[in-house]
Amino acid sequence: MFNFSDLIIQNVKMKKSHVVVGIDPDINRIPLFYLKEAESLYGVSSQGAAHALLEFGKTVINTVKDYVAVVKLQSAYFEVYGAYGVATFWELVSHAKNEGLIVIADAKRGDIGPTSRAYSESFFGDKTNKWRDSNPTVDALTINPYLGKDSIDPFYNSAISLKKGLFILVKTSNDSSEDLQDKQLKSQLTVSETIAEWVNNYACDSIGENGYSLIGAVVGATHTKDILKFRKLMPNSIFLLPGYGAQGGKGENITNAFNPDGYGALISASRSIIYSYNKVEIKTEHQIKKCITDAVRNMNNDINDALLRENKLKWKAEALNSRH
Amino acid sequence: MFNFSDLIIQNVKMKKSHVVVGIDPDINRIPLFYLKEAESLYGVSSQGAAHALLEFGKTVINTVKDYVAVVKLQSAYFEVYGAYGVATFWELVSHAKNEGLIVIADAKRGDIGPTSRAYSESFFGDKTNKWRDSNPTVDALTINPYLGKDSIDPFYNSAISLKKGLFILVKTSNDSSEDLQDKQLKSQLTVSETIAEWVNNYACDSIGENGYSLIGAVVGATHTKDILKFRKLMPNSIFLLPGYGAQGGKGENITNAFNPDGYGALISASRSIIYSYNKVEIKTEHQIKKCITDAVRNMNNDINDALLRENKLKWKAEALNSRH
Repeated sequence: MFNFSDLIIQNVKMKKSHVVVGIDPDINRIPLFYLKEAESLYGVSSQGAAHALLEFGKTVINTVKDYVAVVKLQSAYFEVYGAYGVATFWELVSHAKNEGLIVIADAKRGDIGPTSRAYSESFFGDKTNKWRDSNPTVDALTINPYLGKDSIDPFYNSAISLKKGLFILVKTSNDSSEDLQDKQLKSQLTVSETIAEWVNNYACDSIGENGYSLIGAVVGATHTKDILKFRKLMPNSIFLLPGYGAQGGKGENITNAFNPDGYGALISASRSIIYSYNKVEIKTEHQIKKCITDAVRNMNNDINDALLRENKLKWKAEALNSRH
Repeated sequence: MFNFSDLIIQNVKMKKSHVVVGIDPDINRIPLFYLKEAESLYGVSSQGAAHALLEFGKTVINTVKDYVAVVKLQSAYFEVYGAYGVATFWELVSHAKNEGLIVIADAKRGDIGPTSRAYSESFFGDKTNKWRDSNPTVDALTINPYLGKDSIDPFYNSAISLKKGLFILVKTSNDSSEDLQDKQLKSQLTVSETIAEWVNNYACDSIGENGYSLIGAVVGATHTKDILKFRKLMPNSIFLLPGYGAQGGKGENITNAFNPDGYGALISASRSIIYSYNKVEIKTEHQIKKCITDAVRNMNNDINDALLRENKLKWKAEALNSRH
């Protein structure tokens, strides 16, 4: 049955890109002219900040939409500005979806069962709740597994019925992910390998048309040596690999995240793309768009070239064939 | 130096109550007359739902404020209604603080360093960000430790400088907390015991006037046999124990969470208090208030009686002394 992973593969093929652009807008790093405009409209206020984030986010989306299939919005940067920030988050979700992009909410939620149901409803909606009217929904959500399987189930059940996707945190990109995730259990597995086994059990019960599940895994692009291990533990899951770029991940190091079919991984970068103009004094939207376009195309080429070298690039191989 | 734990102890003494009321408002369980009023004002919509949650939440706060020192707002139930819901969350935070209550945001956040900083700013504010103007802040936040210590540090640093508190998830109240948290490591410690050691290391560096740290721990009231173990592992942390009531926790089973000084634990209940009227058809605010008052007083008496039996009740002992 067609599920979230099939939607991913369909769109990745169409855009010829495994890249995900992360939208993590920090008021201290976005171009100054967005702030000046916002200040003139709403003053230096949460409402003003939320407006600046909205306009900047739209620019990013409008720029990257031809080069990527998926964007990932980091909830934290919007929550800073309270209800105004959250309104911007959902406006950008709608904008990205209207532009044909798949949207992942990077919110890393996880709680006891009834509360996880409420979080699932927050991000995926719930057809039985007539009060939640026209709020948009995201296509996928990142999930923290610390509370165990009964905290994943409500998200998983909603994802099945509403055709959504999940990315469970298995091995995160940050340095101190080792503090807990690399700890070895008596069973010989590490904590993150244990979570990988959970993910695989869920995945085996929810395989789509292309052989992948709606339940994916977050595996940091920074942990090169572990990627192949996790690929083997979760053969049917799409990996979301954050940490490319600003956190140090590179294309040549993450090809093991892909299956021999050339699919199964989405490589995410945020700061190295959306702040690629380096200076907040940059003057025009045209200049910003050029910097972001260059950054996202370079990243895409870096990954596609690395995959080509390993004979894992689906579309260039097809392009070569068509020349015969 | 006076810190968040001192604020807790000061207010617990004043209210003679270790009870925390959790505000987890579910549209399917709040009294119908709130929904009717909201529908007449805003229609069946997210705005309407957020209004109903606001009015219901105010009733709960106004009712429990004389019997508890602390309320805990569960973010998920507000996020369901997008920006409207988040606006209600912050209005209730302000309302509770204006009524002299300490407010814990139960949001279980945790992310890589820069993102944790953004979450910390979302809940605690940041004096260096002039754009976040008049947004209120909470007094404390629950934190998920899956991403390791570099994800806790931004919250901890803010908590020190802004006099806030943290409750790290150590052992959660849900059944499948055992899936990961009870797993035994090669070091012989379980995962949750390992997190308890982290908490204690942070705590030893941030002790307040009453001997407690600003960094506390979530330990489910449902895991009676583990409570004493965690008390010994984290002698200087205030425990937040969810799971009393609806999830099965009882006063007599949680006295081990308290230190011999009679402090060090906050017992939280949500559904058993805020839905204590049982029927959504309940007609008047007066009736609701009576049910909630009875429920919270019974809970407080249950806990105080259990502490008295173990000679751990500070204020009744004082009251007895004053009769001599």
